[in-house]
Amino acid sequence: MNYLDKLAGAVHRNQSYVCVGLDPDPALMPEGINVLDFNKAIIQATADLVCVYKPNLAFYEAFGIEGLTALRETIKYIPSHIPVIADAKRSDIGNTAKAYARAIFDYYGCDACTVNAALGFDSVEPFLQYQEKGIYILCRTSNKGAADFQSLKVITEKGTKLFYEVVAAKANSWNTYGNIGLVVGATYPEELTAVRKTYPEMPFLVPGVGAQGGDLVSTVRNGLDINRKCTVINSSRQILYASRGQDFAEAARKAAQTMRAQINAVLAEK
Amino acid sequence: MNYLDKLAGAVHRNQSYVCVGLDPDPALMPEGINVLDFNKAIIQATADLVCVYKPNLAFYEAFGIEGLTALRETIKYIPSHIPVIADAKRSDIGNTAKAYARAIFDYYGCDACTVNAALGFDSVEPFLQYQEKGIYILCRTSNKGAADFQSLKVITEKGTKLFYEVVAAKANSWNTYGNIGLVVGATYPEELTAVRKTYPEMPFLVPGVGAQGGDLVSTVRNGLDINRKCTVINSSRQILYASRGQDFAEAARKAAQTMRAQINAVLAEK
Repeated sequence: MNYLDKLAGAVHRNQSYVCVGLDPDPALMPEGINVLDFNKAIIQATADLVCVYKPNLAFYEAFGIEGLTALRETIKYIPSHIPVIADAKRSDIGNTAKAYARAIFDYYGCDACTVNAALGFDSVEPFLQYQEKGIYILCRTSNKGAADFQSLKVITEKGTKLFYEVVAAKANSWNTYGNIGLVVGATYPEELTAVRKTYPEMPFLVPGVGAQGGDLVSTVRNGLDINRKCTVINSSRQILYASRGQDFAEAARKAAQTMRAQINAVLAEK
Repeated sequence: MNYLDKLAGAVHRNQSYVCVGLDPDPALMPEGINVLDFNKAIIQATADLVCVYKPNLAFYEAFGIEGLTALRETIKYIPSHIPVIADAKRSDIGNTAKAYARAIFDYYGCDACTVNAALGFDSVEPFLQYQEKGIYILCRTSNKGAADFQSLKVITEKGTKLFYEVVAAKANSWNTYGNIGLVVGATYPEELTAVRKTYPEMPFLVPGVGAQGGDLVSTVRNGLDINRKCTVINSSRQILYASRGQDFAEAARKAAQTMRAQINAVLAEK
């Protein structure tokens, strides 16, 4: 099934815009648990509360082959009606990007992925060719250093723009198959508001609430798509590591419930 | 041993600036051979002719767990006096970048890697902390789409610059530990010449000769570092797939010999 339809279905079914980032970090996980068991417990505890899961590949690669085996098993374990975004932020030239797309979509079977478009169109195109999949292009990331390049002032034919605005415009112009979304961090509310105004219907993946300091209320008010069906707000640490004790899954459930309720309360205001 | 010392040692020992990109592509490999056996044969045939090997992770990830097992075994098989660059082009925020760095340096044991710095300093910093390793930042990539973003005109305090020039300047300013290099494609000789003039001593990784169309002679004339010890010129397809028959390793050896001789002939001119 088409990623965006699957996502809209999960949003509707669970009444949720919550994306849980499945980022297993041994420094934060309960002691003695392995990655797969940790993920399974988190998924069991939150599957009726989220619209999408987003494993970041780095955390699995750090465990080597064993970690990637756990990633594959984790993806298989996620209920089939909930989509999976591979947070991979890959970037490479054409034939190489094709190999990355094969890994993410064919081997791991993910429904969507994040890409870094700094190498230009031919680095994104092999991903777009998977027309049923979702491709989130990094636009304004949630980290402190994002401004180093993403806020540079660029001279374009239509006057001066910020770099991330150029990225958003390019992404929009590449969107032949309607499968492109943008990553825009909650930690930069002005930028999020501006990009959302320009692209009211585009799928957004919004990281940065919770541990990174982004404000949830302003994110919902200013970041949601006009049709309320394709914006996902990610939380990783705040949900996964709500407790480091034996009650970690229960604590994760409560944290996800709270986040979902906070989002829905803002939406009910409107 | 420090990456740059190891590289300089291999350059000197093999009198070579040739980097062989170990990019196993089933569509181009001899039929019926597995990735590890293919790589071993290529390494055996070229280890006295190169200064560095550069596996691109995408081609291993496309084979799934099996591919990554072959990657690990390949890296172990490379003679210890020849360094290995993981062509990974990773990009992510701080704690995630740290996980990628762990995978590349601690798990796979590579000597250097490529990174995409589009997320800014904090996305590169965890790599730089591995002070003995080499970190190649993408500056001007060799592909056609590179111009989409890398050639944008940027307004800086010091006047208008091209985006890739800003990346090079930032990379240079971040180089506290002396372990940063740049990726600059041979397919853009003017840009390569300009960046080399500005940074005469910086380690460069130059992709794009051979199958991608970059000119080897101009690359050597304009791209080599002033000390002739830390510029590596990559060829992947032209060497790996010189023949698809049973003689592939022998053909790869001949192609590597030819490339080394061509480079050294240009250097002898000077």
